[in-house]
Amino acid sequence: MTNPTAAMLVIGDEILSGRTRDSNMHHLAQELTKHGIDLREVRVVSDDAPAIVAAVQALAAGFTHVFTSGGIGPTHDDITAEAIARAFDTPITVRDDARALLEAHYKRTGGTLNEARLRMARIPDGAALIDNPVSIAPGFSLRNVHVMAGVPAVFEAMVASVLPTLTGGQPVLSQTLRVNRGEGDIAGPLGVLADDFPDLSIGSYPFQINGVFGTNIVIRGQDGARVDAAMTRLAEGVAE
Amino acid sequence: MTNPTAAMLVIGDEILSGRTRDSNMHHLAQELTKHGIDLREVRVVSDDAPAIVAAVQALAAGFTHVFTSGGIGPTHDDITAEAIARAFDTPITVRDDARALLEAHYKRTGGTLNEARLRMARIPDGAALIDNPVSIAPGFSLRNVHVMAGVPAVFEAMVASVLPTLTGGQPVLSQTLRVNRGEGDIAGPLGVLADDFPDLSIGSYPFQINGVFGTNIVIRGQDGARVDAAMTRLAEGVAE
Repeated sequence: MTNPTAAMLVIGDEILSGRTRDSNMHHLAQELTKHGIDLREVRVVSDDAPAIVAAVQALAAGFTHVFTSGGIGPTHDDITAEAIARAFDTPITVRDDARALLEAHYKRTGGTLNEARLRMARIPDGAALIDNPVSIAPGFSLRNVHVMAGVPAVFEAMVASVLPTLTGGQPVLSQTLRVNRGEGDIAGPLGVLADDFPDLSIGSYPFQINGVFGTNIVIRGQDGARVDAAMTRLAEGVAE
Repeated sequence: MTNPTAAMLVIGDEILSGRTRDSNMHHLAQELTKHGIDLREVRVVSDDAPAIVAAVQALAAGFTHVFTSGGIGPTHDDITAEAIARAFDTPITVRDDARALLEAHYKRTGGTLNEARLRMARIPDGAALIDNPVSIAPGFSLRNVHVMAGVPAVFEAMVASVLPTLTGGQPVLSQTLRVNRGEGDIAGPLGVLADDFPDLSIGSYPFQINGVFGTNIVIRGQDGARVDAAMTRLAEGVAE
């Protein structure tokens, strides 16, 4: 069985300048793996409309789903919604359903729904809103692109809103063996194991702690019995 | 003055599956900013030769420099060097200079330069080696692509080796103002400020701590006096 595929597009100068460390990629990667959707590519681009449009078009054509993070707030550098609309040649306006959510929220909290905040109700025609229980201003799904906020608490809440609506595949199971040997010592037998279990993904991830080299070997697959069999063989042949 | 541009290509299933949190992107972003090179795009792809080849070709054509991370170790899933060679249609063999480094290293440490480890001496024709003071096996620069290891300690050491050899631009200066107001409250005056200082980049980054919303406003530019002037105006107009 082939799982649905996904790509992520992170939008934000602050990641590329090194000012902020992105955490949304790691969160989404873990959630998609649990849901049986294979994350195949991530791109990070700046707050630049042509860059966003080009990336969205390429990724939407290549993968089952695209998840974006960032650029949907109220300020001048929040241009993601417009760029997504342009990528699909879709009109975008302040939509009544999104405006009603914001009106109710600011009425409740005593804030003002000013012109800047009203930008957050700009939603492309035909898009479905993504619920934002943290700060109300919604994300949206247009075709196979799911547009979410960059603030991690909001991004994570939106992921939790949208993932249950998507058809997942069979979750990928994984087992890890940690060996206190360098990759170069175990690369030979590991290659043989990978040849013998072509249905599994066998990765080796070197680490270095206090000057000692070791390797985590991770075996991944959808069939638990096969993962077990490969892990047993690995433990006999490679570990000491 | 326009600074040189850069893209980064992170290669590794372990990032996309959520098993590992990438830290090389953040490190490189900070180092490039200090060096006056503008990081414009990052892509993360899996250990898949066609995906690596396509990404390298696209990024090498679009930016002054490309920096890659991951996939140059001794195991079966380390396919980056071959993929880079293929991307530029360049022959790749075990090269004497790289082999000599490894031979000396394993002689010194009592390890064995077996067939798997010898893979780490496979370097495309015409590439310049990148020094690896941590674990010796070198990276390399082929045309405008700088190929480095994924283990953070090694990646960081290789960045330190290669960056001083590249022509940098004028470093980007930045100042940050933290205000305890939501983005929506300050978006209006911030847009006016951005219009008045078109030579500067003015970003606003919302945060939420203990249920309180606030915003970091970051002004970036190459001319310190202009950044100062914009920050003074900002502090008068927006902060309370």
